[in-house]
Amino acid sequence: MTGTLWLVPNALDLGAEPVPLEDVLPLGVIRRASGLGHWVVEDARSARAFLKRVHAVVPLAQPLQSLRISELPRPPKGAAAQQTAPHSSTPWHALLAPALAGHDLGLLSEAGLPAVADPGAALVAAAHAAGVTVLALPGASSLLMALAASGLDGQQFAFVGYLPQEARARAERLRELEARSRQFGQTQICIETPYRNGALLAAMLTTLAPATRLAISHGLTAPGAWSRMQTIAAWRRHPPALTERVPAVFAWLA
Amino acid sequence: MTGTLWLVPNALDLGAEPVPLEDVLPLGVIRRASGLGHWVVEDARSARAFLKRVHAVVPLAQPLQSLRISELPRPPKGAAAQQTAPHSSTPWHALLAPALAGHDLGLLSEAGLPAVADPGAALVAAAHAAGVTVLALPGASSLLMALAASGLDGQQFAFVGYLPQEARARAERLRELEARSRQFGQTQICIETPYRNGALLAAMLTTLAPATRLAISHGLTAPGAWSRMQTIAAWRRHPPALTERVPAVFAWLA
Repeated sequence: MTGTLWLVPNALDLGAEPVPLEDVLPLGVIRRASGLGHWVVEDARSARAFLKRVHAVVPLAQPLQSLRISELPRPPKGAAAQQTAPHSSTPWHALLAPALAGHDLGLLSEAGLPAVADPGAALVAAAHAAGVTVLALPGASSLLMALAASGLDGQQFAFVGYLPQEARARAERLRELEARSRQFGQTQICIETPYRNGALLAAMLTTLAPATRLAISHGLTAPGAWSRMQTIAAWRRHPPALTERVPAVFAWLA
Repeated sequence: MTGTLWLVPNALDLGAEPVPLEDVLPLGVIRRASGLGHWVVEDARSARAFLKRVHAVVPLAQPLQSLRISELPRPPKGAAAQQTAPHSSTPWHALLAPALAGHDLGLLSEAGLPAVADPGAALVAAAHAAGVTVLALPGASSLLMALAASGLDGQQFAFVGYLPQEARARAERLRELEARSRQFGQTQICIETPYRNGALLAAMLTTLAPATRLAISHGLTAPGAWSRMQTIAAWRRHPPALTERVPAVFAWLA
């Protein structure tokens, strides 16, 4: 009898002043997380911080120091590399070993849902291949919160990850995605490392058509968060100040 | 001074036996919902059921009967029609009137995040145009939970709404989306009205390539929920039984 791989959502406030965890995660999720003895996580340090916040709401079933916490393989540095699939030689079976031995296993990302924009997806795929039950717990995704707050088409949308960093390649990619948005009537969503948000916005204001509608969600659940949507032409007249350390989500529809 | 349009996530258990709301929604969301006196909702009856569940956790600031609840315009019947943009003559400004008069206003869907696969997006767009502050609260989306549980690529994905109901048009659309998945390396996600899930799956098993990987999430957060991902060839050998009344999310990657 194998254990279950639980996909445990994290809060979205990485790097911000943490609020009580029950304010931003369902109690059912916190309760489940408090009982898990085995974890695979994006980052062990932030996972321990998460588990301390869990413990403050529902005491952990066993001491934090005794939990078995393994890290997912890290993708090579740099945003572009995050689009690369994890190397196939990664020992996914070793990470799944607790579940194969009958223990429930938690998968945790640094922020939001695991396995959506992080290397956890390959672990989930390995779990399916090995016959390990996979269950997702309810939690927020910054991408979908930004889409909801955009007012853009939520019936047809695509998440396109990170754009290239090099100026010419980024402009080319923006034009390609704008064409796709127009052809498919599809909202395009991307993210960027916070300190590059200003450069990305500048590229969007230069490259996208004046009538294309662009939504920016800045800060997500943190205090002072805001979401605004208007045309590129309107953004050009009053470009917003994007803070270097605050995550943002961009969504646009041609 | 205008009020804020709060995007309030609902639970995902529409039609199932309801669990305590704090198990599936963050307390911060429940607290915010308990204080709102004005609502725009997809369905007034299910909104009242939601508000009773809120009241059981955090008492409503005013009696349920005294809340001002307006319904979003309903799209014409049928899944295909749900892809149609709401008619432009809809009086969005009348629905926004409480916010324009300075009251906070909640937007609520029947399940999950508002304004993602429902007509609320047009209200959010009208709020941005009218200068009303829009803030999304953290909650789960069935689409993203299914994507996380799929193990398929979460760095590049598209939600494509409902597929056509007519067999030939549906097969054509499936082939088009499979080509798009292959060309862009993009996971495709769709939903269907539960009683048509069996017909949709049969069409997928006939139409998609044997090596295409298909994930099915069946039941979401309800007891007995399951998620599985394997190739079309493997699904063909052991097709699953999809229950007629249980919502499912389909994700595939060619």
